[in-house]
Amino acid sequence: MSALPPAEAHALEEGLAFAPRYDAQGLIVCVTVEAATRDVLMVAYMNELALAKTLETGIAHYWSRSRQSLWRKGDTSGQVQKVVSLEVDCDQDALLMTVEPGGDGKSCHTGRKSCFYRRVEGGATPRLVFRD
Amino acid sequence: MSALPPAEAHALEEGLAFAPRYDAQGLIVCVTVEAATRDVLMVAYMNELALAKTLETGIAHYWSRSRQSLWRKGDTSGQVQKVVSLEVDCDQDALLMTVEPGGDGKSCHTGRKSCFYRRVEGGATPRLVFRD
Repeated sequence: MSALPPAEAHALEEGLAFAPRYDAQGLIVCVTVEAATRDVLMVAYMNELALAKTLETGIAHYWSRSRQSLWRKGDTSGQVQKVVSLEVDCDQDALLMTVEPGGDGKSCHTGRKSCFYRRVEGGATPRLVFRD
Repeated sequence: MSALPPAEAHALEEGLAFAPRYDAQGLIVCVTVEAATRDVLMVAYMNELALAKTLETGIAHYWSRSRQSLWRKGDTSGQVQKVVSLEVDCDQDALLMTVEPGGDGKSCHTGRKSCFYRRVEGGATPRLVFRD
């Protein structure tokens, strides 16, 4: 990401046009938050197709970087995510999606509710500590 | 990101070793949340140096992709972010940092508290709507 020309930055930041900025792989990062608790559930990526499907259906779609395929969250796990709101950041290279998770409420593929289940502690010599 | 071998995935996901996985540019994405409100303030990136500085000092440091430089958030704006907690996701390619913002509480360079100040609405023909 190089710095944007001021006019372009202003249009992105203050305009009403949705102009998501994909990276060199055609992806935009998406932070997914649970509506009821505001817990951050996961960080994943969308491509143009996944974003279009999400907007059209109101159900979260991502792009799986490991499988290189469109990924309708919950197709195999039952963890379908109903979109409550979608927001874009100032320079339109990140999304914040608020969802109501379906199924058993465990969004992480490890069987936990959130992918963020370990804290980094220890300062200069960090180690991980599992959250309660 | 290709799929990880099962043993490597297990170590990343269930282990106590902090092994952040940087992308091809040497960066890891960081979601920054305000401790008091749980509002998502911003999404930014860290490189190994920024992460080390953050862990050593307890103050948020990022890597500015536009300026290609270490960025101690608040050095020019007063918006220093005191780290309350840092978490890593299952496969250790994303960070979730909870902070107490300093200064006037406006984390976004546009003068707003959060970078996420516009909703995407309209389904298949999306437009942006400013939040209250």
